[in-house]
Amino acid sequence: MSESMDYKSAGVDIEAGNEAVRRIKQHAASTHAKAVLTGLGSFGTMYSLRDAIEGMRDPVMVQSTDGVGTKTKVSVMARRYEDLGRDLVAAVAGDIAVMGARPLTFLDYVGMHKIESAVMEELVRGMSAACVEAGISLVGGETAEMPAVYAKDDLDVVGFVTGVVDREKVLTGAGIVAGDVLYGVSSSGLHTNGWSLARKVLFERGGYTVDECPEELGGASLADVLLAPHANYVMAIRKILDAGIPVKGMAHITGGGLVENVPRILPEGLGALIDRRTWAPQPIFGLMQKIGSIEDLEMHRTFNMGVGLVIVAPAGLQRELEAAMAEFSALRVWELGRVEPLVDPRDAGVKFGGV
Amino acid sequence: MSESMDYKSAGVDIEAGNEAVRRIKQHAASTHAKAVLTGLGSFGTMYSLRDAIEGMRDPVMVQSTDGVGTKTKVSVMARRYEDLGRDLVAAVAGDIAVMGARPLTFLDYVGMHKIESAVMEELVRGMSAACVEAGISLVGGETAEMPAVYAKDDLDVVGFVTGVVDREKVLTGAGIVAGDVLYGVSSSGLHTNGWSLARKVLFERGGYTVDECPEELGGASLADVLLAPHANYVMAIRKILDAGIPVKGMAHITGGGLVENVPRILPEGLGALIDRRTWAPQPIFGLMQKIGSIEDLEMHRTFNMGVGLVIVAPAGLQRELEAAMAEFSALRVWELGRVEPLVDPRDAGVKFGGV
Repeated sequence: MSESMDYKSAGVDIEAGNEAVRRIKQHAASTHAKAVLTGLGSFGTMYSLRDAIEGMRDPVMVQSTDGVGTKTKVSVMARRYEDLGRDLVAAVAGDIAVMGARPLTFLDYVGMHKIESAVMEELVRGMSAACVEAGISLVGGETAEMPAVYAKDDLDVVGFVTGVVDREKVLTGAGIVAGDVLYGVSSSGLHTNGWSLARKVLFERGGYTVDECPEELGGASLADVLLAPHANYVMAIRKILDAGIPVKGMAHITGGGLVENVPRILPEGLGALIDRRTWAPQPIFGLMQKIGSIEDLEMHRTFNMGVGLVIVAPAGLQRELEAAMAEFSALRVWELGRVEPLVDPRDAGVKFGGV
Repeated sequence: MSESMDYKSAGVDIEAGNEAVRRIKQHAASTHAKAVLTGLGSFGTMYSLRDAIEGMRDPVMVQSTDGVGTKTKVSVMARRYEDLGRDLVAAVAGDIAVMGARPLTFLDYVGMHKIESAVMEELVRGMSAACVEAGISLVGGETAEMPAVYAKDDLDVVGFVTGVVDREKVLTGAGIVAGDVLYGVSSSGLHTNGWSLARKVLFERGGYTVDECPEELGGASLADVLLAPHANYVMAIRKILDAGIPVKGMAHITGGGLVENVPRILPEGLGALIDRRTWAPQPIFGLMQKIGSIEDLEMHRTFNMGVGLVIVAPAGLQRELEAAMAEFSALRVWELGRVEPLVDPRDAGVKFGGV
């Protein structure tokens, strides 16, 4: 008689999964607003919208999903996962915060070779911390053990965020006119974009390990610089909007960099002229550009180059923006440039000057 | 001077990604309710809640996320992706439909070795078709090309669904009492659970290819039987609830099978006695059990065994349920068994009789 087969012998360990779920629940519970009506054990998660939409004439649900790209590979190299959890929340929540929405709930999906409770706990601890900072309830998620899809130690993480905003308060950029100013808010490093190129440049061509401290980085290790979590802009954006600053549009500088993300909020016929001398990208960007002999434009459409958020508003508001964000000491504000009419509609939406 | 590096040489093809996005948008647009306020190009997606929550005293948002496990591997073997898209929607939307929620929006995440526009289009065509069937708007998604994480041809797909229900109409199973009947609704096959074991049994131990037609399957190929898309219960559930049938709770039979999913809706102190003679699982289950010498209990906690949905309601409602679901000709209804008091609280929540 042949040996009896079961799910565990097929490479799926349900008990390890259950232990991970127990730890996840503990961290997630720390993020729950009163509006969360159930734990994570049911078929779906429940969140009462009543308080969140009170007084809204036309509540609009704003949603986004994203992963963190192959930044996961660097986390695996350094065996550090907590900041990857923070990254996921900040990256995805930022996408709806720039539309004026207040994020309410977050769900995550983690696909991995083998469920390791310690890794899952680090991930969810990071997600939970970032959710608490942003006023988001981590309501659910799914962990899938797929040894046949993910190589040993490999994983993919995906986040889903949902928020609400009254329709009349949605920020679309429609009111932007020539002469408006682009205020840049600092990133904390690469955030979650450009990692395939970054890894190739630093670890293949550069030959570095994550523990090395290239002199260009002033004593910090590559792991520390690279894994610095994505700046969490949610509460800073809320402060700016609550302060009544007349923001016309905001762009989250993600995949495609300044080059592709700023035009997403500009009305037709308008472009941006950005003065490269107005801010200094972190040293990691110069190090990668040098090693990879990467062209300037390619740098600016692959990486955020030190600017994670662009706020478009009338001129003369830098001090007000700084005051509104005073409690977020890591966030700096620069006047990057201005909105201008496009001379030729076939022009690229962003031009760089001052290089 | 060393060769200049860019994002494409690092293995990421932005142009191919853009082409996939164009095709995706076309299919997704076919699913959009009037409430969808933007296309997919913005930072987040927008859906007006006004009509969906009209008249609700306390609108509750119900959400779920999941993948389809390593069923992706079988799709890759057969190079058929459309039904995988259908699977994803039906699997995830079913999780909130059983709570009484009306699903409104769906977002997907696809992580793959290399973005192939044709594969993406098949996937999204399937998702869009399933969304239309279920009255869901496919509002957004993300496709990530990660050659370093996914092996050649490999991919992972993740879905995220959001719906609403008035708080007083949430189905939790709290009103279930001993004597209530478990009505089972047929599955279309394995759905999206148990695939690691299924692949190991059929393709490793069994030595089959996806194109073979084992005689136990009555002439159908393994690909046809295995890739039959997950039954889409959303509209059937809506018909049942709209018909006023006094449903007390519903369980979506996913990972963990009848054994783990039925107890999720049973109040403390109650269990289920299921008579195995009341329905006949599809031949694929018997074939797997035979090849893998898999124990009965393991079969029932790994696979759905032909039952994808369990409805708990008072006795005597089978005809009403059948009438409400008449237009869904693929769905059959069986009386599986009854709710009983647990004699010992340490007992498992589900017992099988009649074997």
